[in-house]
Amino acid sequence: MHLNAFLMPAGHHDAAWRHPSSGADRATDVAYYQDLARTAERGRLDSVFFADGVAIRPAPAANVAGGLEPLTLLAALAVVTSRVGLIATASTTFYEPYTLARAFASLDHISGGRAGWNIVTSGTEAEARNFNRDTHLDHAVRYQRAAEFVDVANALWESWEPDAIVFDRDAGVYADPSKIHDVGHTGEHFRVRGPLNVPRSPQGRPLLVQAGSSEDGRAFAARHAEAIFTAQQTLADGQAFYRDVKARAARHGRDPRILPGICPVLGSTEEEAHRLSESLTELQVLDYGLEQLSGMLNVDLSGYPLDGPLPDVLPSEDEINGNKSRFTLVARLARREKLTIRQIIARLGGGRGHRVFAGTPEQVADELEEWHRLGAADGFNIMPPVLPTGLEDFVDHVVPLLQKRGLFRHEYESTTLRGHYGLD
Amino acid sequence: MHLNAFLMPAGHHDAAWRHPSSGADRATDVAYYQDLARTAERGRLDSVFFADGVAIRPAPAANVAGGLEPLTLLAALAVVTSRVGLIATASTTFYEPYTLARAFASLDHISGGRAGWNIVTSGTEAEARNFNRDTHLDHAVRYQRAAEFVDVANALWESWEPDAIVFDRDAGVYADPSKIHDVGHTGEHFRVRGPLNVPRSPQGRPLLVQAGSSEDGRAFAARHAEAIFTAQQTLADGQAFYRDVKARAARHGRDPRILPGICPVLGSTEEEAHRLSESLTELQVLDYGLEQLSGMLNVDLSGYPLDGPLPDVLPSEDEINGNKSRFTLVARLARREKLTIRQIIARLGGGRGHRVFAGTPEQVADELEEWHRLGAADGFNIMPPVLPTGLEDFVDHVVPLLQKRGLFRHEYESTTLRGHYGLD
Repeated sequence: MHLNAFLMPAGHHDAAWRHPSSGADRATDVAYYQDLARTAERGRLDSVFFADGVAIRPAPAANVAGGLEPLTLLAALAVVTSRVGLIATASTTFYEPYTLARAFASLDHISGGRAGWNIVTSGTEAEARNFNRDTHLDHAVRYQRAAEFVDVANALWESWEPDAIVFDRDAGVYADPSKIHDVGHTGEHFRVRGPLNVPRSPQGRPLLVQAGSSEDGRAFAARHAEAIFTAQQTLADGQAFYRDVKARAARHGRDPRILPGICPVLGSTEEEAHRLSESLTELQVLDYGLEQLSGMLNVDLSGYPLDGPLPDVLPSEDEINGNKSRFTLVARLARREKLTIRQIIARLGGGRGHRVFAGTPEQVADELEEWHRLGAADGFNIMPPVLPTGLEDFVDHVVPLLQKRGLFRHEYESTTLRGHYGLD
Repeated sequence: MHLNAFLMPAGHHDAAWRHPSSGADRATDVAYYQDLARTAERGRLDSVFFADGVAIRPAPAANVAGGLEPLTLLAALAVVTSRVGLIATASTTFYEPYTLARAFASLDHISGGRAGWNIVTSGTEAEARNFNRDTHLDHAVRYQRAAEFVDVANALWESWEPDAIVFDRDAGVYADPSKIHDVGHTGEHFRVRGPLNVPRSPQGRPLLVQAGSSEDGRAFAARHAEAIFTAQQTLADGQAFYRDVKARAARHGRDPRILPGICPVLGSTEEEAHRLSESLTELQVLDYGLEQLSGMLNVDLSGYPLDGPLPDVLPSEDEINGNKSRFTLVARLARREKLTIRQIIARLGGGRGHRVFAGTPEQVADELEEWHRLGAADGFNIMPPVLPTGLEDFVDHVVPLLQKRGLFRHEYESTTLRGHYGLD
């Protein structure tokens, strides 16, 4: 079983920042994130991961807004850890391939082969407006650009052969130019000559991670991703997604690791876990939740009664140019469980669409084991509701159970991120 | 007096990588750079600095090619040092302002207020060809874009007022949105709405450094730069540059620090210093030197006799679209001292156009004191011929002399880079 810790300042519950045990007041403090990474490494987790966007989130009034840029942050975490993988999100829509390939190659050197790239295409207009555009690129065009971007990045990472550096001081030969290759890419979106100006890194290239679950996203993941983060609310949905993506990838001769997200609300008793869950719900700022939900559904919900249902008419997924799969997940959840707007806000508060599970360490371990055994997961994207405490609890109380059951490593068996995930 | 250590893998002499004491074999080893930064901090230097380009240098066969990307590298140095400033070069031609402003704000947080940005416009076609272009932008257009870029970046760094984060857990108020401002920039080169998604950093913005000495470069430096690196071969040239740029800046009510480069070739005796100098010249790969010189002068010198002069007809500075001021400096040096091509290659080998001075620590301290006293320098960009030894020698043997003479700090008196340079 593979485990990734999804890190953020306060935790994954949208009210976590108000909880006294959260580190929300340390959102720009590198030492805070270093502690989190060391905790993950103490638990022998495969990796830590930071999401990212290139605009401020819409409601800074009522939740942590702003933080550190993931690539610089991970470089600072790399040098205080030795094994845990380091995954940064970066956008193919708003970076240039040469710049990003270089930063990841550098991070891979700095970390000794522990860099991973969560590939996103960026879905909001707020982001587009920070990059010379009024509207953001169409969903399909973003994925076309992403595919070409990854091709160029891969070519750049391959541009130095492993033995390109000769380093013969006596003969005055530093490198063999015949082993450092131009890329010579000319495509729809990019023209890049290469070679990269960073020598080949320990992993060759970062682990490629992806989290899009729309049709475009799945097709992309099948071709490129080595690890896939996904939001799945039920075991049946998780199994269906797993089967579908594994089959698509197999057609390309590939076998990516699939990691559904889970927000484990831990307590030493069931009652304690539910108390934590309820106390977080009570801390939710409803206006914030309403704004987030309106954004996900592309509908202004501010005129609707909180204790009534969602409006009858929602947009169709085709009309969503942001996170299509998250839209569908929320709409289905609301319909299936006949939730009021207030109840949806409470449910989404925990994991923004990811599964929330409250229970004892034993019960959480059971859940993970079941999904793993029944073909819904190769591992999990662990999204603690409150940080740092939720990660500490997971590492100290859930990981030992998974180890005892023979489901999770006792010690790292590799030095690279790709090695942790059992990939070449 | 202010001192910056200009770091690179092997050292500033172009044959340094062949010298047995250089760290050229550790070009992608973060621990090597961490040691260099700690050495600079031990010497109480104001800052360390990395140059940068976004293409591989043209002749990987005969010199260190490739290395780490400066922003990720400096983040990794920030967390093992506590005082020394950290200056990264980044290009206004090939970055987007939002991306770069964010990375520097992040580095400034990670370092506790020690980030600096050496603003370059990028001058080679090899770089343009990695970024969707066949030719690079015209010199003047690059500077126009740079000026707009810096305006946007400054606005983004200003977008969070110092007290924007309220952090009232009880009331559920994270930030005061009225203190987080849109930038709303619409210009010739960029449209950026903002605000930045990194809260205001300890310095507010990184120290702005610049090194262009052409007409466009001086005008830009006068308006924007807080510290200026420059290559000056003679005291008279240094004084003229200093007077000119200080006067231009004064017209904008500004007083940047001016730091000419010097490559100090140190020996415990004069003879030992000259022996080191000669041994480095002997290690030069002539083909490499010829290619570098041809590039600087925009003339193919491969057909000319090495022991003859430069060709009579060189391009004029107007025809140079790369580093204009370096072209003029080399052309003048060759003419003034009637140097053969071989002699120019030997002279440029030490500092690529920066002043090279071989002598004892006492003699180097005398030189620095003279330039400082006679109005040519507020400090120096120290470019050791061989690293790490040249920096260790400078810190252990020259810095104590400068301290004894009352020219240089004994202890840091500030925690920020801007503070070290005596700026607000």
